[in-house]
Amino acid sequence: MKKILFITSAFLMAGSLLAQQNLFGGAQIKSPEVNPDGTITIRFQGPKAKSVKVEGDFLPEQLIETGNGGVWAIHPAVDLKEGQNGVWEYTTPEPVPADYYTYTLTVDGIKTVDPANVYINRDVATITNQLIVSREKGDNGDLFSVNDVPHGTVRAMWYHSKELGTDRRLTVYTPAGYETSGKKYPVFYLLHGAGGDETAWYTQGRATQILDNLIAAGKAEPMILVMTNGNAWDTAAPGESSKGFAQPGALSTSREGVKEAAFELHFPEVISFIEKNFRCKTDKNSRAIAGLSMGGFHSQAISRYYNQKFGYVGLFSGATGGVQAMSQKPAESPVYTQFDADMAKQFAKGKAPKLYFIACGKTDFVLPGVNALRAYMDEKGYPYEWRESEGGHIWRNWRNYLVEYSQKIFK
Amino acid sequence: MKKILFITSAFLMAGSLLAQQNLFGGAQIKSPEVNPDGTITIRFQGPKAKSVKVEGDFLPEQLIETGNGGVWAIHPAVDLKEGQNGVWEYTTPEPVPADYYTYTLTVDGIKTVDPANVYINRDVATITNQLIVSREKGDNGDLFSVNDVPHGTVRAMWYHSKELGTDRRLTVYTPAGYETSGKKYPVFYLLHGAGGDETAWYTQGRATQILDNLIAAGKAEPMILVMTNGNAWDTAAPGESSKGFAQPGALSTSREGVKEAAFELHFPEVISFIEKNFRCKTDKNSRAIAGLSMGGFHSQAISRYYNQKFGYVGLFSGATGGVQAMSQKPAESPVYTQFDADMAKQFAKGKAPKLYFIACGKTDFVLPGVNALRAYMDEKGYPYEWRESEGGHIWRNWRNYLVEYSQKIFK
Repeated sequence: MKKILFITSAFLMAGSLLAQQNLFGGAQIKSPEVNPDGTITIRFQGPKAKSVKVEGDFLPEQLIETGNGGVWAIHPAVDLKEGQNGVWEYTTPEPVPADYYTYTLTVDGIKTVDPANVYINRDVATITNQLIVSREKGDNGDLFSVNDVPHGTVRAMWYHSKELGTDRRLTVYTPAGYETSGKKYPVFYLLHGAGGDETAWYTQGRATQILDNLIAAGKAEPMILVMTNGNAWDTAAPGESSKGFAQPGALSTSREGVKEAAFELHFPEVISFIEKNFRCKTDKNSRAIAGLSMGGFHSQAISRYYNQKFGYVGLFSGATGGVQAMSQKPAESPVYTQFDADMAKQFAKGKAPKLYFIACGKTDFVLPGVNALRAYMDEKGYPYEWRESEGGHIWRNWRNYLVEYSQKIFK
Repeated sequence: MKKILFITSAFLMAGSLLAQQNLFGGAQIKSPEVNPDGTITIRFQGPKAKSVKVEGDFLPEQLIETGNGGVWAIHPAVDLKEGQNGVWEYTTPEPVPADYYTYTLTVDGIKTVDPANVYINRDVATITNQLIVSREKGDNGDLFSVNDVPHGTVRAMWYHSKELGTDRRLTVYTPAGYETSGKKYPVFYLLHGAGGDETAWYTQGRATQILDNLIAAGKAEPMILVMTNGNAWDTAAPGESSKGFAQPGALSTSREGVKEAAFELHFPEVISFIEKNFRCKTDKNSRAIAGLSMGGFHSQAISRYYNQKFGYVGLFSGATGGVQAMSQKPAESPVYTQFDADMAKQFAKGKAPKLYFIACGKTDFVLPGVNALRAYMDEKGYPYEWRESEGGHIWRNWRNYLVEYSQKIFK
């Protein structure tokens, strides 16, 4: 028995050393803390620090003029105050609504993460801490959480694009029960914005939690959710491609050799791949597309150019225009130059999408562009559903639009 | 056209604001940098900092005595030196071998991540930056990288355990071509250590990159890889369960109500789930199991208790004993108490595993325990293959053991 006890003590030693590692930074403080009165406290243990700030989307909003008639809502950083034992602290002036939030700290001018909170999100090159505030079942915090409901499967998988000449990565969610049901499902293509990738919607977008929860509650139809990478010059999220751990600042400028509208033009390959590899309903009204910001632009263009492919279209804070994203050159691709003609085909009598959903925040800097698209559609008599919300160009809005849109489709 | 140009300019504005966000912390420095002479430089821009240290597994090793005849290899933190413009710097004294490394910074006593490097890994409660050094095709850095080879699919999915009374999350890799081949594949169950979860082997373990690369090179058989969560008191990795964003320090102590050997006893449910949901070969010699540290302990116990289920067994720095992990109570579960009898069944004439692979580092604190198991097996005449490596109880070794083991199984 001696031998066996000896082995055990070596194992216990491993346990205790791991426990020491378990405190990232040795922080003994609690941060973030949701207080009984609904406010949030952020703490930082830094006896040698001269200045500590927090920046996050739970902080009070401030509006700046964009100079083109719009406004931009930002959440300026605020100072933590040093208290006893070198513990700095900030508490929000008001209770914070139930939601999913992200934040960062800036210590002596260096932006960093909260050492007391191991939940970190990478959105291309922006690293933030995560925080969920939930007070009751069904509130936003609850809807964005992993709950004890049946869970779908989330896959990172690769498809080949002849159009782009490469394999590319995408994310596919199938609803709980998919593996054994034998049924066919409708498919929802959900696109990220500039500064995102195929991981964005299932990390801070909380899309898989939202669908798990809405499907379990009977509020959304069981569906397949496909999250593509909209950066045609990349094959996968930073760190997940053969570019290795190149820093994303470098990645995002390497767009050479990518032709105009490359992402939109290759999109039928995505649909083919999904419909070949999954049990999909393949009629128009079993296909939905939506995206945020640049993904709204992409959704508008793809649903217009392939004008009878999608029964449901959603533009969330959509950067909605008829010309190439990120360029002021005149458009050359037919994806963009046939705007009027393709819109006319998309909305031809009896052929219009069952739902064309446009959502934007009152303090979102893209609102003037969104309103211009709405004016154009009003003039032409193309039907759409309009959702104006509070707030700016932020994930808090996009998650809410997804919650609403995903309950409207495939019904 | 005016309208369209206007929309575009709003879009460009979004692009430029995103570009500003793109520099996490505004760092203009390069860190980490692999220099032409093979050394690594770590930099930190902190004009107000008083002290900056780096800790990482590429730093020189130092040995400490464990007091039980073993040694423990650690990589002590080293100081960065302040140079011009508040940029601190450390360069390794020697070239660093091609490999995957992790590191953290400690600024004025606060452990943090490198603001110039957005690649971060969470291993339960330990947050580190990631770095790959690769110099030529086929070296370790290359083997641990995403390369332009066919990629398998990686799924996060949930199964139900009656034994544990809950749904639980696991990770399943299927090799490139699985979706359309119609073929059946052998299955490799790969288990993490104490302080890990179902994400550990595919993040810093690089298991999916290793298999993609070895399979593409014809060095490993196409196989299904299953990565379970070995913490019977949890349902999923921190942040991925209904415990929400509770900090892992709290999670790891909440083991109440979990009976002895609970993980091992529920393991047949994992096998059933996989064999029901995937196209698997289901004979003994098409099943392999291996694990690191606690996962080695689990692999030893599972392959012994279910003694004719696995044709291949791998113990990587295995905390290999006959009693319950993390406890000094006498063992009660038959999983542990029938050690001798079950080993005898597992190694009965004509029934022994095709491969029983035991690997450990010379400076790994579990080596005495591993050697005790080897002495026991030598005495009984149970065949095994022994791999002694340099280094301690670290991922650098576990990745290497996986590379070797995965080329030996299913052949």
